[in-house]
Amino acid sequence: MKCRKCGEKAVINMPQHKLALCKQHYLEWMPEQTERFIQKYHMFGREDRILAAVSGGKDSLSLWDILWRLGYKCDGLYICLGIEGGVNYSAESQRLAEKFAEERGLRLRVYDIASEHGQTISEINARTSRGQNKPCSVCGMVKRQVMNRVAREEGYQVLVTGHNLDDEAAVLFGNTLNWAVGYLARQGPVLEANALGLARKAKPLCRFYEREMTAYALLSGIEYIYDECPYAVGSKSIYYKEILNKMEADRPGLKLTYYLSFLEAKKTGAFIKPADDEKEGMHTCPTCGQPTTAAGECSFCKMMTKIHGA
Amino acid sequence: MKCRKCGEKAVINMPQHKLALCKQHYLEWMPEQTERFIQKYHMFGREDRILAAVSGGKDSLSLWDILWRLGYKCDGLYICLGIEGGVNYSAESQRLAEKFAEERGLRLRVYDIASEHGQTISEINARTSRGQNKPCSVCGMVKRQVMNRVAREEGYQVLVTGHNLDDEAAVLFGNTLNWAVGYLARQGPVLEANALGLARKAKPLCRFYEREMTAYALLSGIEYIYDECPYAVGSKSIYYKEILNKMEADRPGLKLTYYLSFLEAKKTGAFIKPADDEKEGMHTCPTCGQPTTAAGECSFCKMMTKIHGA
Repeated sequence: MKCRKCGEKAVINMPQHKLALCKQHYLEWMPEQTERFIQKYHMFGREDRILAAVSGGKDSLSLWDILWRLGYKCDGLYICLGIEGGVNYSAESQRLAEKFAEERGLRLRVYDIASEHGQTISEINARTSRGQNKPCSVCGMVKRQVMNRVAREEGYQVLVTGHNLDDEAAVLFGNTLNWAVGYLARQGPVLEANALGLARKAKPLCRFYEREMTAYALLSGIEYIYDECPYAVGSKSIYYKEILNKMEADRPGLKLTYYLSFLEAKKTGAFIKPADDEKEGMHTCPTCGQPTTAAGECSFCKMMTKIHGA
Repeated sequence: MKCRKCGEKAVINMPQHKLALCKQHYLEWMPEQTERFIQKYHMFGREDRILAAVSGGKDSLSLWDILWRLGYKCDGLYICLGIEGGVNYSAESQRLAEKFAEERGLRLRVYDIASEHGQTISEINARTSRGQNKPCSVCGMVKRQVMNRVAREEGYQVLVTGHNLDDEAAVLFGNTLNWAVGYLARQGPVLEANALGLARKAKPLCRFYEREMTAYALLSGIEYIYDECPYAVGSKSIYYKEILNKMEADRPGLKLTYYLSFLEAKKTGAFIKPADDEKEGMHTCPTCGQPTTAAGECSFCKMMTKIHGA
């Protein structure tokens, strides 16, 4: 197979785009496409201060790399969760995120859960009933809380995450299995900020297949953590990805159609529009000042209070 | 495993209901549950004249049997499609439908596509470009047209079909893969009639798993056609059923939750409401008098005109 742009040997074939590219043109194509998505979904501009949540994995480091190459002003945020399983997961991923930032002269903020809150994710998980012994639920909540807090307190206009098409399709899939309309209404390339303090969020990679992200990271020489989080084994999202991978194999392009037709359906007014949060009774947590759906402390602070009181 | 009602040996276990039943109690339970669904979704009353579309398969014959046992006034409609594959599919299914009606003293209307329109489904399919050589698209359109016509012309208040939960879940699944919002808006246990002549439709079996329907047909001694339509091999709906069966095996109850939470989501106002068809420009076909979405002849008449003109 030959590169459509130069006729050299192609390194990747993307049947859903009827496009094969060589290394050089693939490494050009990815930032061009990302720029196109940033514009199309009105994600952010070149004057905005952007905060990228980086985990040390291929998606978030590639995102940061692409935004840097495109000339956006983007700092990184690494949240140290203190997960020791696998290849000493957190320490290794932090090392790779720091190395990445250093090589490019970029600013990486590090937020250490253990030093800020006295306990690692694993320790918090052991002391809460949330999530039935899987720390994923606790971890997700903590990360959302920290990302939002840092983005607001440090004055970033937008928080970006490295969710790719496979991630988004799996979330969508899960949210249709039990028709979680509220989540469906909120899913998209951009989640707007609200007056009570939810930071604006964007997902510039949401239209790239996971394999395209892997190819970008490998071809551009980004050193990233290969392993999945050791806690992710057996998670629902991995299960949904397996189902979707089977269908994608049978019908190439299915995931992209699935996600894009969902976005189109939303534009026509299908699904309830995200509730006007202020009117729907969003509150401010008296402890941390972050927005929360119920009156009183937010879930994060409630959990931390309970743990420290225990 | 023992019957929950009498302690005798159970013949079926339904984990999603935490319920195992013996033959006798299962054959009582199915009509009771069907009655509950008829009431819950306001499908029809005992004074209504009901027309059941019967194919000779387990679902439609079981439906007719259950409605008969429950004391509803229900005639059958068998549409002879002229499909000769497999076990001489159409002839055999017609024989079984007629035998069923005769044994119970019920009225079966037979509509023969070939004598009414000069050609069988297989022949029509060979002369149209619709459906890429698979007659399923043509067949579905023809059946919808005929069912609606007979229901209206013969003054039935409601047309019922034997769609079970597996059928409905597969349709739902397919309609979310490309987010066909119009179809999502119309899917449900009841589709209301409209002023232009769409008959009221109901699916009393929509909450029963396919295996529950098979068990009912077998245990009540209904003789039905075991084979799938020979044309159905490789169809999308069978593919979607396979995917859902895999997920159901991993998470028992998944299909039921999937379908019921969809109905709940619709009730909260998610998805566009079915368009008010009159306002949205529904028309009456000048040839057959049936409702159609575009001005001029309906798809059915257009196809027949083209075939006869060819």
